[in-house]
Amino acid sequence: MKIALDAMGGDFGPRVNVEGALLAARQEGMCVVLVGDQKKIQKELHKTRFSSQSIDVVHAPETIEMHERATESLRSKKNTSMRVALELLKNNEVDAVVSAGHTGAFMASALMVLKRLPGIERPAIAGCIPTLKGSCVMLDLGANVECRVSHLVQFAVMGALYSKIVEKKTHPVVGLLSNGEEESKGTDLLRQANQILKTKELNYMGFIESKELLKGKADVVVCDGFIGNIFLKTAEGLVSAIFSMMKQEFQKRFFTKLAAGFFYFIFKDTLYSFGRRLDYAEYGSAPLLGLNGVVQVCHGRSSSRAIKNALVTAQKSVESHFLEKLREELEKMGIE
Amino acid sequence: MKIALDAMGGDFGPRVNVEGALLAARQEGMCVVLVGDQKKIQKELHKTRFSSQSIDVVHAPETIEMHERATESLRSKKNTSMRVALELLKNNEVDAVVSAGHTGAFMASALMVLKRLPGIERPAIAGCIPTLKGSCVMLDLGANVECRVSHLVQFAVMGALYSKIVEKKTHPVVGLLSNGEEESKGTDLLRQANQILKTKELNYMGFIESKELLKGKADVVVCDGFIGNIFLKTAEGLVSAIFSMMKQEFQKRFFTKLAAGFFYFIFKDTLYSFGRRLDYAEYGSAPLLGLNGVVQVCHGRSSSRAIKNALVTAQKSVESHFLEKLREELEKMGIE
Repeated sequence: MKIALDAMGGDFGPRVNVEGALLAARQEGMCVVLVGDQKKIQKELHKTRFSSQSIDVVHAPETIEMHERATESLRSKKNTSMRVALELLKNNEVDAVVSAGHTGAFMASALMVLKRLPGIERPAIAGCIPTLKGSCVMLDLGANVECRVSHLVQFAVMGALYSKIVEKKTHPVVGLLSNGEEESKGTDLLRQANQILKTKELNYMGFIESKELLKGKADVVVCDGFIGNIFLKTAEGLVSAIFSMMKQEFQKRFFTKLAAGFFYFIFKDTLYSFGRRLDYAEYGSAPLLGLNGVVQVCHGRSSSRAIKNALVTAQKSVESHFLEKLREELEKMGIE
Repeated sequence: MKIALDAMGGDFGPRVNVEGALLAARQEGMCVVLVGDQKKIQKELHKTRFSSQSIDVVHAPETIEMHERATESLRSKKNTSMRVALELLKNNEVDAVVSAGHTGAFMASALMVLKRLPGIERPAIAGCIPTLKGSCVMLDLGANVECRVSHLVQFAVMGALYSKIVEKKTHPVVGLLSNGEEESKGTDLLRQANQILKTKELNYMGFIESKELLKGKADVVVCDGFIGNIFLKTAEGLVSAIFSMMKQEFQKRFFTKLAAGFFYFIFKDTLYSFGRRLDYAEYGSAPLLGLNGVVQVCHGRSSSRAIKNALVTAQKSVESHFLEKLREELEKMGIE
C-alpha cells in the first residue's frame, strides 16, 4: 500500500509534510509518495538524514497558493502537486491521497480527476465532532459553501453510511442542523430538505440545534459547508478564548504565580483534549466523501504529527474497504 | 416613564414576568405595565402580596404559543399580549416594550404596529457578545432567517451607530461574518454585501471569521439571523458541554469528592461569568433595532431576574434618547 502526500500543501510548505511522511514511515512502517517540487522535497529529506525505501518522490512543478481562487488556478495550472497526486491515485499507482493545501482547489481537482460516486453531485468533508456522549459525524465542514436541497440529502445518506461502516453504529441518528427543532424553523431550502429526508430510509430525527449536537443527540449532522465552517471556527475560537480567559482569571485569583501555573496546567490538560478533538486539523484530518477514491483533507496549519495521523487514517480507510462498501450501499439505496 | 411587559411571553408564562416586573418596581422604582390575561396576571400578583401603584395591568385575551408560525398567528389573532403592548407604545401610553415571547411573531407584530425607521427594511436583534478585549455588537441574532444584501448593509450601519451611541466607541470597527477573511470567501450574497460596505462611511474591516470575533477584532459583527443563531447556540452549547466535561474530569482526577467539588467551584465561577454573557437571554435582553420604538426581546427561558434586567435596559435606552439619535444619524448618512 502506498499513500500520496501533497508535499507543497499547507501553511508551512514541504518541511512539515516531509516530517509527517517520515514519522509515518518510521513509526508506522508506511510507504509514502511525496508529490511536489523535487528540489525542495529533496532538500528537506537531506536535512533529516533519513534514507528509506519507503519514501518516494514524484515531481510536480506547480503549487496552488492559499489566496488563489480554486476555479482560476485549476484552469491555469495543470501540473500542481495536488493534481499530480490525484492522477497517481486514478492510475492505481497509489491507494489514497492526503493534502493540507487549498481545500477548494483540492476538492475541485479531485472532482475533475477522480469523478464522483454514482448518485453523488458534490463531495463533502466529513468531520468527527466530539460530543458529551462520544462523537458525531458532521458534514459538510467546508467543501461546499452553497448547497442545493439534493446535496444536503446526499450528505445525509453518505454520513449515515460512514457512521455505519467506519464507526460501526448500527442505526445512526441523522439530524439536519437548523435554528430550532420545530418544522417551521430553518430556511426554505432546509425545510425542503427536511421533507425529503423524512421519506428516506434513514433513522432521521429532523432538525437539530447546534447545542443539542454537542450533547450527542445525533450520530450524523448535516449542514452546508458555510454553516459547518462557522460551527467549527466558533467552537475552536471559543475553546481558545476560554483558555486565555482562564489563564488571566487564575492569575488574578491565586496570588502566587506558582499556584496559578498549577491550576492552569490541570485545566489546560483537560480542556485541551476536548478542544483538540474539535479541530479536525490538529486531530488528524477529515475524509472527502463522495469521490471515486480515498482522499483526506488536512487543515492548512497542520503539524507534522497531524500529517502523520492523516496518512494513518487514509491507510486505515483503504484497509477497511470503506469506499467499496459505500459504493455498494449507495447502489442498494437506489441513489445512483 | 412606563415600560410595557408582555406578561404572557416566555416558556414560564405570567409567573416569571410578574416576578420580573415586581423586581423592577421594588429594586429600581420602575413603573411597569403588565399586558396579558388579566385573571392570570392578577392571580400571580395576589400570590406575591405586593401592592404597588407602580404596576398597571392591561388586558389582552390572546397569546401566541412558541410553536405557532408567526405569519399565521398574526392573521388569526388580533388581541395578543404583544400586539396590545406594542399599540400602547405606538399611542405613547408607554415608552418601551419588553417581550420574552415568540421572537418571530414579536418582530412581525412590531413591524406592523410601529413601522420601520426610514431607510431600514428589516429590524435586527443586536446582541452584546463577550470577547477577549471586552465585547462586540452582533446582529442579526435571529430576527431574519434569510437576508438580502441590502438588509446586511443596513444592519452594519445600525450596528455601528449602536456601538457609537450606546457603547461610546468613537470609530467602531465593523466586520461581516464569513468563512474566511479573503475577499474570495463567503457566499455570493456576502461578497456583494462586502463590496457595498467598502463604499459606505464605516470603519469597515471586511470579512471576519468567528474565531477572530471572539478575540475582539471587531466592535460590530454583521450576519443573517440564521448564522447568528448558529453562532450563539454553538457558543452556548459548548460552554455547557465544557462544564459537564470538566465536572466529570475533575472527579476522575482528584480522588476525593471534596477536592473535586472545590476545583469545580473555582472553575464554574470563572467560566460561568463568560458563559452567562454569551447567553443574551440570561444576561438580560437584546434590542430590536430598526423600528419606530424602543423594543427589547428576551429569550424564551428568561428568569425573573433576566426580565427585570430587560426592563432596566429598555428604560436606559429611552433615557439615552438612542432612538432619536439613531434616526438623526440615519438621515445624516442619507440612508433614509
